[in-house]
Amino acid sequence: MATHPVSPLAPERFPDLPQVRGVSALTARLGLYKHERDELLVLRFAQGTSVAGVFTRSSTRSADVAWCRQALAAGAGRATALVCNAGNSNAFTGPAGEAKNAATVAAVQALTACAPHEVFLAATGVIGKPVPADLIAGSLPDLWPRLAAPDWEACARAFSTTDTYPKGAGATAEIDGAPVAIAGIAKGSGMIAPDMATMLVFVVTDAAIAPPVLQALLARHVETSFNAITVDSDTSTSDTLLVFATGASGAPLIERLDDPRLAAFETAFASVLTDLALQVVKDGEGAQKLIRVEVTGAASDASARTIARAIANSPLVKTAVAGGDANWGRVAMAVGKSGEPIALDRLAIRMGGVWTARDGGAVPYDEAAVDAAFASRNVDILVDVGAGTGGSVVWTCDLTHGYIAINGDYRT
Amino acid sequence: MATHPVSPLAPERFPDLPQVRGVSALTARLGLYKHERDELLVLRFAQGTSVAGVFTRSSTRSADVAWCRQALAAGAGRATALVCNAGNSNAFTGPAGEAKNAATVAAVQALTACAPHEVFLAATGVIGKPVPADLIAGSLPDLWPRLAAPDWEACARAFSTTDTYPKGAGATAEIDGAPVAIAGIAKGSGMIAPDMATMLVFVVTDAAIAPPVLQALLARHVETSFNAITVDSDTSTSDTLLVFATGASGAPLIERLDDPRLAAFETAFASVLTDLALQVVKDGEGAQKLIRVEVTGAASDASARTIARAIANSPLVKTAVAGGDANWGRVAMAVGKSGEPIALDRLAIRMGGVWTARDGGAVPYDEAAVDAAFASRNVDILVDVGAGTGGSVVWTCDLTHGYIAINGDYRT
Repeated sequence: MATHPVSPLAPERFPDLPQVRGVSALTARLGLYKHERDELLVLRFAQGTSVAGVFTRSSTRSADVAWCRQALAAGAGRATALVCNAGNSNAFTGPAGEAKNAATVAAVQALTACAPHEVFLAATGVIGKPVPADLIAGSLPDLWPRLAAPDWEACARAFSTTDTYPKGAGATAEIDGAPVAIAGIAKGSGMIAPDMATMLVFVVTDAAIAPPVLQALLARHVETSFNAITVDSDTSTSDTLLVFATGASGAPLIERLDDPRLAAFETAFASVLTDLALQVVKDGEGAQKLIRVEVTGAASDASARTIARAIANSPLVKTAVAGGDANWGRVAMAVGKSGEPIALDRLAIRMGGVWTARDGGAVPYDEAAVDAAFASRNVDILVDVGAGTGGSVVWTCDLTHGYIAINGDYRT
Repeated sequence: MATHPVSPLAPERFPDLPQVRGVSALTARLGLYKHERDELLVLRFAQGTSVAGVFTRSSTRSADVAWCRQALAAGAGRATALVCNAGNSNAFTGPAGEAKNAATVAAVQALTACAPHEVFLAATGVIGKPVPADLIAGSLPDLWPRLAAPDWEACARAFSTTDTYPKGAGATAEIDGAPVAIAGIAKGSGMIAPDMATMLVFVVTDAAIAPPVLQALLARHVETSFNAITVDSDTSTSDTLLVFATGASGAPLIERLDDPRLAAFETAFASVLTDLALQVVKDGEGAQKLIRVEVTGAASDASARTIARAIANSPLVKTAVAGGDANWGRVAMAVGKSGEPIALDRLAIRMGGVWTARDGGAVPYDEAAVDAAFASRNVDILVDVGAGTGGSVVWTCDLTHGYIAINGDYRT
């Protein structure tokens, strides 16, 4: 974990996660960090586990992201193991990076007799420095017997980098009367800080869900969770979100997205994704406040998302919140720069629950109430752009001296 | 001017600008600021002066921007006067903002007997607070006799806000053997800080250039000057760049963009725009370093511009430069998030004149040389994305504690 102070937005402690059947885990030290810490995480799944994933859209994606994409596309949506390391992102490492991946996959195959496309890989850390091809592969045979029921907090710590606290979330539900469990862990702080960070999320459930259904569920709920957060507008080369469904609960197999027996599970699954996503924002580098930006009245939901992102990524909005200043003029500016259709004479802005502008102009408001809202850890901004019925919510954090200190002070 | 320390990138002093015939100026105090300073600037032009302009593309543009756009579109490209104020941006002011503009235009018409579309308006300062309609209009008759040969430094100071120094640039050239002069002034620091700032640029020449030619010249050279700079990715509601050609030099009238007699003038004009644009970046809020980002090998010039902007706007790149860290991994990340076509296996990155990555991977390099380059006030980043022949240059500044202090510290 980082040496920076723990985020004031952190939960009091790592949550108690439910037991998920059909998964075992190990963590170990590889020596990529000079100090004593585990930076290898292995998850081993029961036979027949389904997998789904979403990844960074960056064109400079890491070798591990390229591998996972290929494994999902070429395989049958089944997973046997996940091998994840911190300390080196395996991005921008060319053929050496591919060699490390091939060796790791082969090592897992030798231990499990699985198909290559059932091995998933993730990495976070330094860009552009290849690790020896057998660094991980060579260590796996000795480590394999240590696989055991997951200690999720240890798992979360093993792939942390600039994170100031380990991130976990869980939920339980029933499918056709059978209890199922979900456990998820995440790491991320800045969207990326190539010497150190990225965003990786792994969610495991013992529900039995066919791969296409799992992928569709993930696609649906990533939009309102991880795709709805931003720390600094920078996109990692390695962002990876993988979901594994082991089926070991004994609950009936779900083979259709519209199966009504899926409803409770879907709610629980969405809550885990949103919880983890908000924990990433709350650990945004230097974050002192969580900001919720809602846009209504847009031409479409997509347009609302674009406007909300423009607000959430605006350095001037984020520094204003840091300063406790309900500067709605900066919000109006960010709306304008988004390039999306708006009705300027109907634009309305609500800061901390108080309307400060309506019908395209300032209105008198209770400044003390707004100041009090902006002094809290949770700041709400709502904008109605008067152009339609589209809406979207995006979460971000404020931009403080802490961000500069973490990202810019290391040599000065 | 702001109370913040003068940018270390500032020129030693305001330049000596050449005498431009056909323009007079006055500055005056309106009382929009509590402290003693002029915040009204009036330029008066000789009869027949041509005008061209480019403006913010923000959909929350100010009333003054809306007026100028309309005046350019509806008029004959002629200008009689420019009336500019600091202290209030007249953005988000609804009908009251339009009333102030109408009154100001009418006052100038009464003094000059010009058409309404020959009066140009610009404003910078607080958003959302209308000023009395006759604040400026009522003061003009008494002030008008003070119009005299411009003191360009006083003019530049009169519309400064968070600027830490006044910005001016000038040049001379010949058109068909006749000497012509160009003088320009600019203000801007953050792209916008709605309580205070925006970017306004006024350039005056005594060359005789037909309005369509002037507009075409401006469009051509704004791309490589003001459209090639970014401080914080935030776009003002009020950005305005106006160029006036009085024709008072006696040089022959230029009526075609491809007139060969225009060549020397065009070079001089481009140099003034670039000089002013770089002065704005050098006064970027908290700026300690000027960063030049060049992208080559892109699919098109537009694609190169998008990639260069992604790099120049990346908080992680900008904080790395602030920290003196040649973190090329962050540059690779920013290339990836741009969404533009690249050849990952041909990507090459040069930091401070030293190649740190080639063919999509790290190469050994002289770290001391790169560190020395990144310790200087001028930092060069070049990226070749290996996908074509498009190129672009964008300038920005680093992201420092000063930016947070200026924009976020005022209430904490």
